[in-house]
Amino acid sequence: MDRTHHAPGLSLRDLASRCGAELSGDGDVMIDRVATLDGAGPGAIAFLSNPRYRAQLARTHASAVIVSMRDAAATPLPKLVAQNPYATYARVAAIFHPAESTQAGIHPTAVVGASARIAPSATLGAYVVVGEGTTIGERARIHAGSVIGDGCQISEDVVLHPRVVIYARSSIGARTVLHSGAVIGADGFGMADEQGRWVKVPQIGRVVIGADVEIGANTTIDRGAIDDTIIEDDVKLDNQIQIGHNCRIGAHTAIAGCVGIAGSAQIGRNCQIGGAAMITGHLHIADGTIISAATGVFDSIETAGVYTSAFPALPHREWRHVASVMRRLRTFAERIRALERRLGRE
Amino acid sequence: MDRTHHAPGLSLRDLASRCGAELSGDGDVMIDRVATLDGAGPGAIAFLSNPRYRAQLARTHASAVIVSMRDAAATPLPKLVAQNPYATYARVAAIFHPAESTQAGIHPTAVVGASARIAPSATLGAYVVVGEGTTIGERARIHAGSVIGDGCQISEDVVLHPRVVIYARSSIGARTVLHSGAVIGADGFGMADEQGRWVKVPQIGRVVIGADVEIGANTTIDRGAIDDTIIEDDVKLDNQIQIGHNCRIGAHTAIAGCVGIAGSAQIGRNCQIGGAAMITGHLHIADGTIISAATGVFDSIETAGVYTSAFPALPHREWRHVASVMRRLRTFAERIRALERRLGRE
Amino acid sequence: MDRTHHAPGLSLRDLASRCGAELSGDGDVMIDRVATLDGAGPGAIAFLSNPRYRAQLARTHASAVIVSMRDAAATPLPKLVAQNPYATYARVAAIFHPAESTQAGIHPTAVVGASARIAPSATLGAYVVVGEGTTIGERARIHAGSVIGDGCQISEDVVLHPRVVIYARSSIGARTVLHSGAVIGADGFGMADEQGRWVKVPQIGRVVIGADVEIGANTTIDRGAIDDTIIEDDVKLDNQIQIGHNCRIGAHTAIAGCVGIAGSAQIGRNCQIGGAAMITGHLHIADGTIISAATGVFDSIETAGVYTSAFPALPHREWRHVASVMRRLRTFAERIRALERRLGRE
Repeated sequence: MDRTHHAPGLSLRDLASRCGAELSGDGDVMIDRVATLDGAGPGAIAFLSNPRYRAQLARTHASAVIVSMRDAAATPLPKLVAQNPYATYARVAAIFHPAESTQAGIHPTAVVGASARIAPSATLGAYVVVGEGTTIGERARIHAGSVIGDGCQISEDVVLHPRVVIYARSSIGARTVLHSGAVIGADGFGMADEQGRWVKVPQIGRVVIGADVEIGANTTIDRGAIDDTIIEDDVKLDNQIQIGHNCRIGAHTAIAGCVGIAGSAQIGRNCQIGGAAMITGHLHIADGTIISAATGVFDSIETAGVYTSAFPALPHREWRHVASVMRRLRTFAERIRALERRLGRE
Repeated sequence: MDRTHHAPGLSLRDLASRCGAELSGDGDVMIDRVATLDGAGPGAIAFLSNPRYRAQLARTHASAVIVSMRDAAATPLPKLVAQNPYATYARVAAIFHPAESTQAGIHPTAVVGASARIAPSATLGAYVVVGEGTTIGERARIHAGSVIGDGCQISEDVVLHPRVVIYARSSIGARTVLHSGAVIGADGFGMADEQGRWVKVPQIGRVVIGADVEIGANTTIDRGAIDDTIIEDDVKLDNQIQIGHNCRIGAHTAIAGCVGIAGSAQIGRNCQIGGAAMITGHLHIADGTIISAATGVFDSIETAGVYTSAFPALPHREWRHVASVMRRLRTFAERIRALERRLGRE
Repeated sequence: MDRTHHAPGLSLRDLASRCGAELSGDGDVMIDRVATLDGAGPGAIAFLSNPRYRAQLARTHASAVIVSMRDAAATPLPKLVAQNPYATYARVAAIFHPAESTQAGIHPTAVVGASARIAPSATLGAYVVVGEGTTIGERARIHAGSVIGDGCQISEDVVLHPRVVIYARSSIGARTVLHSGAVIGADGFGMADEQGRWVKVPQIGRVVIGADVEIGANTTIDRGAIDDTIIEDDVKLDNQIQIGHNCRIGAHTAIAGCVGIAGSAQIGRNCQIGGAAMITGHLHIADGTIISAATGVFDSIETAGVYTSAFPALPHREWRHVASVMRRLRTFAERIRALERRLGRE
């Protein structure tokens, strides 16, 4: 559950070879932790990825830094030079902060269906509940209070943080991580309007989540109405996201917090969707598309690119003027046209 | 918790009579499941509701279909002809996928207040906690990990999916369903500003939820400040919705995911509120109003109709132009007026 | 968990002295509960804070009222006259509805790490899980099903409502209240893009929450990437809020429901952020700023004031016209300029 720092020091040379980065400078300097450029002290390694922070490179007290080739000349410090300093930092940080290991085995308070199959190397924490016919793979870690329904497949190395709920017949791929409060497989929002009263439409599809997915806290993914809701491999979902029934999210797509995607939306591969964006249903979005934060998407997007619709905040008085003029925009069009016609006649 | 398919086949004639739909064609054909038009094979029944998918009717391999009177002539297949094909489909699907039955009784790990009264036919799952003075009605199903506070009334046939929390003195009507992560009765957002510090205002009202309501995953409904927060019968709430203290949601209203409704909003009956809409407090919305997705409602709506305020996404470059011109709109008004005055003088 | 009314009656004089308010009129009248102006009967005390409701003062059946000096003359009833009637009401309501007391001690089903230190006066409810090295302070109340990770500091008088999750190494200050479903310390949304695949960036910072904070249901606050995410004293967070990694929220700031704040945003002290607002990351907002509901903030705000960007709902037909004209705004600018040049020449 936590990445407690406990690795002893490593030489910069060691780090370089373990991360596939190029060493430049003194490879014997000992590193025992990561830090920010401004927060680093002796023994720490920091990174520069965003040129906005380059000034921090000159004043850092880090023992070593991770930089791009462009920034390598800007510092005399021992360094790892990388194509992608942020990714290299990620690997270095993972060395000093390995994911917590847990003790394999089933906590005495876990309630497990008689027909469930739990791999011997898996960990089930306190008060975990697992349904009938569910399989849990090797080294999976199901933390306290999580509830997994009947007929689920939880693959190897999956991590459920405390208090995740997985409804029946859901499938979670290898190494996928779900944060607390996530709910997978609740009923899609389906009901038929019968003369002013609602008739519930049973949601009989499943949720199928690929490998290497990460799903944030309190994010919800609904089961399909008949067909399944599908999250492809290496998708990254932040917190508080809602994915409606029968959506498909393409591989490697990243979605920031608070996004809502309505049912049957097909999001392409390698898309990036900014926080609080809203995507209606029954549309598709091309691979590689970038949706800006707080943007509303109401039609399919056929051409990858950046799409935006959010107005930035203005001082309130100014905004009131803008908003009041908005309603008269159509008359502007007409009045400009009338002026042009009159001038045209003269 | 799950709608596992297990009903044996039924004849189309049987289905017609059980659903009150008109049979057309071979009533002896055997149906054992529902499917989509494109996904159906022999033995499946599919439906056509949205004319957009009519082409699928011609190519489906379903053994029978559910169609409207208008589409009946478009297919030679055995069929159920219905006023409302989607509602008929809902009933057929519920026959093949009945709501899971659970074993009545209280799980040995459930912690139940001594003064609570649990109907004999109710089901309390593993690690459920029920407070003092709470009543739980016949055939109610409270799934694993749910927590119900003191003094609550949970009516017959209510379903709480795993890990729902109901705060004290809440009332839930018959057959209402709450999905995982829902929180009913947390304190409304009430505090008094006393010279820059906040004083908490106790929230002493309740939450009263009617019959046949469905509440989505991770949806939150706050208790009232003094009076109650009220959700009327047959209201349908999707996931991730926030309902503030002292709201009243009128009967049969449906609200899609991620909507936020601030305190003391009165929403009429039979309204439909689109996903990610935002409704401020202390206003009322007429019966039968439709609010589009991502729309902001900041004033009362007296006249039913469709209301919208969300701008659709544009290619980013184009949007930057629009946004930059927005701030100058007021000057447009003045400049057009000036031109009109000058031309008027000539 | 609940504020059940159980205090016997008090005289208005008693209430005045306990709340530091000025008594005007009969101090012997007995009060046994609070109520709304319209809902009050004999024995109740009500308050008027919003002038919009002044008419209710004349017709109330309350035995006494709490009013401002400006409204004191408008009613002959026994009254408490206060600078801030709403804050005085808060204190009176707290007298009649004290926070529920719980029985100190650790429920037999609580699972507590051997190295955790729980104050004797603290309460741990059913199925609570507490990790190694965590400290829980005097009179803290941890309700059913909450999970607290390793190495956390939970200060005195903290309240966790049922089913809160606190990840490892989080720190919660005195008297802070967290509502159900809140998740503190999940991983920030950090990953590095390495040729179309994501590499997870370990999130090794913490969440540090001050004293007297209130956090709403299903609100999520992410741990920092390296440095911490910080919520200062007396901050009030409503439900369904997302706070990204490395944000700092200044003291006394209040944030309404459904707000999303992206990583590394620095929000000043005494700010107010309206419901469903969206604030991007890596910016700062001046002390005392007010952000309207549903507003997008994409740049730093240096000057306190009110900032808005949300368009109100229009009848749909009208909105379609506005939206269609929006795309042509740039041409308006050009056409107006052309007209002005032509007229200029004449």
